[in-house]
Amino acid sequence: MTTAGKVIKCKAAVAWALNKPLVIEEIEVAPPQANEVRIKIVTTGVCHTDLYHLFEGVNKDDFPIVLGHEGAGIVESVGPGVTEFQPGDKVIPLPFPQCGKCRFCKSPKTNQCADAWNTDSMKSSEDSRFTCKGKKVLQFFGTSTFSQYTVMNQMAVAKIDPAAPLDKVFLLGCGICTGYGAAVNTAKVEPGSTCAVFGLGAVGLAAVMGCKAAGAKRIIAVDIKPEKFVKAKVFGATDFVNPKDHNKPISEVLTDMTNGGVDYSLECIGNVEVMRSALESCVKGWGVAVIVGFTNKDDFAARPFQLIAGRTWKGSLLGGYKMKTGVPEMVKAYLNGKIKLDEFITHNMTLAQINDAIQLLEHGKCIRTALSVSPP
Amino acid sequence: MTTAGKVIKCKAAVAWALNKPLVIEEIEVAPPQANEVRIKIVTTGVCHTDLYHLFEGVNKDDFPIVLGHEGAGIVESVGPGVTEFQPGDKVIPLPFPQCGKCRFCKSPKTNQCADAWNTDSMKSSEDSRFTCKGKKVLQFFGTSTFSQYTVMNQMAVAKIDPAAPLDKVFLLGCGICTGYGAAVNTAKVEPGSTCAVFGLGAVGLAAVMGCKAAGAKRIIAVDIKPEKFVKAKVFGATDFVNPKDHNKPISEVLTDMTNGGVDYSLECIGNVEVMRSALESCVKGWGVAVIVGFTNKDDFAARPFQLIAGRTWKGSLLGGYKMKTGVPEMVKAYLNGKIKLDEFITHNMTLAQINDAIQLLEHGKCIRTALSVSPP
Ligand SMILES: NC(=O)c1ccc[n+]([C@@H]2O[C@H](COP(=O)([O-])OP(=O)(O)OC[C@H]3O[C@@H](n4cnc5c(N)ncnc54)[C@H](O)[C@@H]3O)[C@@H](O)[C@H]2O)c1
Ligand SMILES: NC(=O)c1ccc[n+]([C@@H]2O[C@H](COP(=O)([O-])OP(=O)(O)OC[C@H]3O[C@@H](n4cnc5c(N)ncnc54)[C@H](O)[C@@H]3O)[C@@H](O)[C@H]2O)c1
Ligand SMILES: [Zn+2]
Ligand SMILES: [Zn+2]
Ligand SMILES: [Zn+2]
Ligand SMILES: [Zn+2]
Repeated sequence: MTTAGKVIKCKAAVAWALNKPLVIEEIEVAPPQANEVRIKIVTTGVCHTDLYHLFEGVNKDDFPIVLGHEGAGIVESVGPGVTEFQPGDKVIPLPFPQCGKCRFCKSPKTNQCADAWNTDSMKSSEDSRFTCKGKKVLQFFGTSTFSQYTVMNQMAVAKIDPAAPLDKVFLLGCGICTGYGAAVNTAKVEPGSTCAVFGLGAVGLAAVMGCKAAGAKRIIAVDIKPEKFVKAKVFGATDFVNPKDHNKPISEVLTDMTNGGVDYSLECIGNVEVMRSALESCVKGWGVAVIVGFTNKDDFAARPFQLIAGRTWKGSLLGGYKMKTGVPEMVKAYLNGKIKLDEFITHNMTLAQINDAIQLLEHGKCIRTALSVSPP
Repeated sequence: MTTAGKVIKCKAAVAWALNKPLVIEEIEVAPPQANEVRIKIVTTGVCHTDLYHLFEGVNKDDFPIVLGHEGAGIVESVGPGVTEFQPGDKVIPLPFPQCGKCRFCKSPKTNQCADAWNTDSMKSSEDSRFTCKGKKVLQFFGTSTFSQYTVMNQMAVAKIDPAAPLDKVFLLGCGICTGYGAAVNTAKVEPGSTCAVFGLGAVGLAAVMGCKAAGAKRIIAVDIKPEKFVKAKVFGATDFVNPKDHNKPISEVLTDMTNGGVDYSLECIGNVEVMRSALESCVKGWGVAVIVGFTNKDDFAARPFQLIAGRTWKGSLLGGYKMKTGVPEMVKAYLNGKIKLDEFITHNMTLAQINDAIQLLEHGKCIRTALSVSPP
């Protein structure tokens, strides 16, 4: 009756090609190899980065693939050499590893583990434990949470509090850690400061929450969809600006509103023009602009004087968290009422409805959809 | 016999038009107005930023003008309300003010005084105390050290140690503070780190000196003129790279040399392509690239992943020093043997030879020329 050591046949949403709807297929998931963990995914979200792979064609050859990298589940079995995990453990698979041994993991300055998949090109993991109809199917960022089972290296799995509700904490696998950490870890927002957050999806709203937690006195939320402001207020936004309501460049609007510019700005969209605006919205002298949105198709750009005048441009991957140790702490913060998660979930569906969930996100009609993948 | 309160007629090198040689003219210098100081310039240098104004045509309308912003002199007279300066004080005129009262001056984070001339566009001071042949002549950054006398607001004048040799410390008016401070104040180079400095003019060499003072263990000096390496070694460079010796992009050369990239890079040229290379030469995770070179004609640019991977892009104006208080401290550091200055001076000339000095810098044949302007 145990599945350990055997190939598991289960459902997964397979992306066969660029720009095509996902197809629910039966796939084979091989047993975990040395240092690997096989995980039953209970809940997954859809993050804009999944859409980026599916629709933007940056890595056209990385198909077929199982997308999804924001999920939570339960360990089904472990491979040789794994002592940290046991079947039944509640876990969050991580889109970025923490080997704990490299000079990056050892430095307090960064979460850029040397063991990462080739993130500079956003290439998917070359290796995979999935097959479907006799074909090898790739794993996205090594994770692939749009599958009932997945296999991951233990350096990219976080063990979390057994009390954690998986249908909520799955959000900590990517979007919420990303936005929150971009504010508190990367921007290092200071008490009393003025912030601007561009883009009010889950990532941007989490950035608003992070700014608020850091003590910002004014948080200007910017989105072209005014309906997003209702949620932004819940997380702490004090002002809302819709660029479509203004003829002036948005950086001028913000500079006027703040008597010289904001102390911190966070781009949570993935649009290089907005990245420029976010920098130009910062006050000279000490303004810090953080790029959180993902795109690697175009250059971001600005005039050198923007930086010479004292602004700083940074970027944030997963909010700067060393995820294996950081995610369990964020789970605790949720359980202790220190951060909100439930408010991000606007829809509940099952994996079979994955294409509907993708459409909702694509058209900005949801914040996050919680997709039930396997029974817990 | 005293000149106080009277118009002074003296020699100045006037730039009548873009791209034309300067002309030594007799100009009239009006007496200082309220809060102003009239200064006899003893020595001036030529900095690449003078050439930028003269040759690049960014502010075509800002002619006629007296260039020069790296000089040292002696107070001749003071205007109403000036109590800090007296005739005979040794001073360095500052290309950027420090009013001491604005929120920028009050913050320890920045030197971007709100009272600055409009530096975003690098526009020259609208106001001027100079006339020549009945025409108003502009002051460059308010300074204009290519004149025997100039008038400046006291918030942009630094009083220095009477023991300071003006024919050496004039270098602290711009280039040396800029490069040194870019390393120690802006990049905040840490002991044991690896640095790359692009461009080995006075600014870049001062950056090398700053990296060394901050304890860098390896300082890679990059220039297309290999003869610059001799000086770079004097200031502490450990390696030299001439981009012309390599077929690979220079960022790859540096990444290979350093097993992943440098901790800090400083662009001291003013070339947006090199700014990009300097960022791409930094190690992921914590690499900091600082733009020091001046240009506002083009955008600098890079792929978002360069920052998302943990790099930081900054800029530095005058090395981040609050100049009115910072320059006197740097003068003391020189007098105490803590920083080198003499080694930057490769040529000595008089103001009459200004066009020769400009040619030397334009063709990279000098580091700095000390031009004697008035007898001390
Ligand atoms: N750096 C990281 O580690 C990381 C992690 C996760 C997600 N991301 C990226 O963060 C971004 C946001 O992800 P998400 O899941 O919240 O996406 P989302 O689609 O839910 O949210 C994007 C929001 O931006 C708004 N928007 C679009 N264009 C705009 C414009 N021109 N001006 C103002 N607002 C605009 C949309 O209306 C929407 O509300 C994506 O680019 C995603 O790839 C980065
Ligand atoms: N940010 C500031 O506050 C500030 C202050 C002073 C000067 N600056 C700027 O700093 C820069 C340097 O000034 P400087 O007076 O030392 O100039 P400089 O002309 O003496 O030195 C520039 C050096 O760069 C080298 N170089 C040119 N192109 C190169 C390339 N593609 N690759 C490598 N090396 C190259 C030249 O050979 C030369 O040695 C200028 O842009 C100047 O305007 C900025
Ligand atoms: Zn994501
Ligand atoms: Zn690691
Ligand atoms: Zn200068
Ligand atoms: Zn000021």
